[in-house]
Amino acid sequence: MNIKITGVGSYIPQIVEKNTDFHQHEFLNIDGSTIEHPNEVIVEKFKDITGIVERRYAKDHLTSSDLGFFAAEKAIEDANIDREELDYIIVAHNFGDVKANAIQSDILPCLASRVKHSLRIKNPKCVAYDILFGCPGWIEGVIQAQAFIKAGMAKKCLVIGSETLSRVVDKHDRDSMIYSDGAGATIIEATNDEGGILSHETASFTYDEAYYLFFGSSNKQDLCRDTRYIKMHGRKIYEFALNNVPQAMKTCLDKSGVNIKDVKKVLIHQANEKMDEAIIKRFYRLYKTPVPEGIMPMSIHKLGNSSVATVPTLYDLIVKNKLDNHQINKGDVIIFASVGAGMHINAIVYKY
Amino acid sequence: MNIKITGVGSYIPQIVEKNTDFHQHEFLNIDGSTIEHPNEVIVEKFKDITGIVERRYAKDHLTSSDLGFFAAEKAIEDANIDREELDYIIVAHNFGDVKANAIQSDILPCLASRVKHSLRIKNPKCVAYDILFGCPGWIEGVIQAQAFIKAGMAKKCLVIGSETLSRVVDKHDRDSMIYSDGAGATIIEATNDEGGILSHETASFTYDEAYYLFFGSSNKQDLCRDTRYIKMHGRKIYEFALNNVPQAMKTCLDKSGVNIKDVKKVLIHQANEKMDEAIIKRFYRLYKTPVPEGIMPMSIHKLGNSSVATVPTLYDLIVKNKLDNHQINKGDVIIFASVGAGMHINAIVYKY
Repeated sequence: MNIKITGVGSYIPQIVEKNTDFHQHEFLNIDGSTIEHPNEVIVEKFKDITGIVERRYAKDHLTSSDLGFFAAEKAIEDANIDREELDYIIVAHNFGDVKANAIQSDILPCLASRVKHSLRIKNPKCVAYDILFGCPGWIEGVIQAQAFIKAGMAKKCLVIGSETLSRVVDKHDRDSMIYSDGAGATIIEATNDEGGILSHETASFTYDEAYYLFFGSSNKQDLCRDTRYIKMHGRKIYEFALNNVPQAMKTCLDKSGVNIKDVKKVLIHQANEKMDEAIIKRFYRLYKTPVPEGIMPMSIHKLGNSSVATVPTLYDLIVKNKLDNHQINKGDVIIFASVGAGMHINAIVYKY
Repeated sequence: MNIKITGVGSYIPQIVEKNTDFHQHEFLNIDGSTIEHPNEVIVEKFKDITGIVERRYAKDHLTSSDLGFFAAEKAIEDANIDREELDYIIVAHNFGDVKANAIQSDILPCLASRVKHSLRIKNPKCVAYDILFGCPGWIEGVIQAQAFIKAGMAKKCLVIGSETLSRVVDKHDRDSMIYSDGAGATIIEATNDEGGILSHETASFTYDEAYYLFFGSSNKQDLCRDTRYIKMHGRKIYEFALNNVPQAMKTCLDKSGVNIKDVKKVLIHQANEKMDEAIIKRFYRLYKTPVPEGIMPMSIHKLGNSSVATVPTLYDLIVKNKLDNHQINKGDVIIFASVGAGMHINAIVYKY
């Protein structure tokens, strides 16, 4: 028995927020002091580091569970399965449903219950739960689906990553330009087909790193100190990722028995272009191998960092031939990898 | 190989909130209208139905992840394991860390990362994630730990249920008297000892039921309509639970192969005494068997409904001989069962 992704779908929100749309923002330092440079310079520097030119925001009437539902419909159609046969619906997110212009996360009921409700699935044996695991949540959901299938508890699982980070950003923080909204969904099935998940690896670094991403106050000091937003210690995260993600990917690849030369694509969480490039470089250095051209497809330029949604969305774009110059063909070995709040790191080596 | 609970601990918060403490509350109907009866009558009627006389609230400086950490320390000590050997830390909750007098849920990072951080565990291979699954979250976490062990992905897991419902109640809603704070934690291990988890059953009812428990506005109409609290359609939940929980428990027991006469205790989610009694009655009626005396231990009178924490806390009280007239002895078969927001139902048949 193998465990494969038999269907994928994504939802890319309609509102395009360009870098120039941030020119009027009042960006401040953490202590509330004014930033020396004009916004045009801040935004340009931001683009050079992250690669982000524009990002997507969900329309006001939609929440994260809506986005997840849209992506799920596409994945179910793509897999061509009867939705009533699903054994699990696993939704990864980090902030729940946050309404536009509101500050409360709504996670009652869990988003998986909402998605299942919207999908009009009747079968009560389809277990619907949420996982909170930072940006690596979708990959971890796939690893959990694999566990249920291996343990004989499931045959078909729907694993979704959905997030509306635009609802939790501090507009006075330059980092707010990174974040975007989106959702990706996949059907994971036990199958007799060749390929599928060859190995996985997960690590949670919490001893010093637990609060590298956190929920904190606005940089604008006269805003309510009790209202909190997504915040990060960017420099620490960058160093942490470089020191730990390549090794986790190597552990995963070595477990799979696949030679580094046979890896066709690495789909890494779209957090920051420069960081992702540095991770890939270190990963190949661990094998004393040059980085192959076109190994790392990117969608961050147009889509920003949509947390749990970046990896499944990127995968969807490639297999549906919607990303220029990138293809995945039958038999190709690819690596999924992610790093994020927690701090968690994970990877899957997958044969398409 | 069997899968057993090798350690348990709970944290019962220190603040005792008595029914009489609600005599000064301004209780209102959903539409904001005044309730005819004086508070003394409302509170007395509430006690007759739910059995709740007092409940526990966490002190202001503590959050849900703190409570979970306290319970985890006790469970680790009880199991007498090296914490660095844990493969998973699974935290079930429904609202994250909500500070006293604040309205935002803080789930970044996930609570499992916070607990692992507080436990000073260094091993990055210990995967720390949260599950959102309504009140049945702790039982579902145990079922997931079982899956990881069966799939060969884990040997030792820490499963925690922690909640501070006192932080999300609408003081103008009579139902606010139900909710309390607490945490329970267990170590789940692969072992060669006899007994352990004999069977499990899970169901998610979302077609009509997804929003029976929800996040809604205060009954006091002039409070901010955007600020939301835990809310429920009590009558619908009561009927739903009676129609579905006994059958789910029966499915689980029948899978285990254990005769109903050999069940020694049923530890059911402490939501409402009258409802729990009705569930037990229907469960035994499915087997055309009278309800044995003392089959259903209760802690709700003193502890209220602490969501994910009620079942592991109750189990902890009994095995540590802290609940009068109830014991669980080696070889006893017990049933864990829960129902809650989602709407989710689950059960485990367990041989002590």
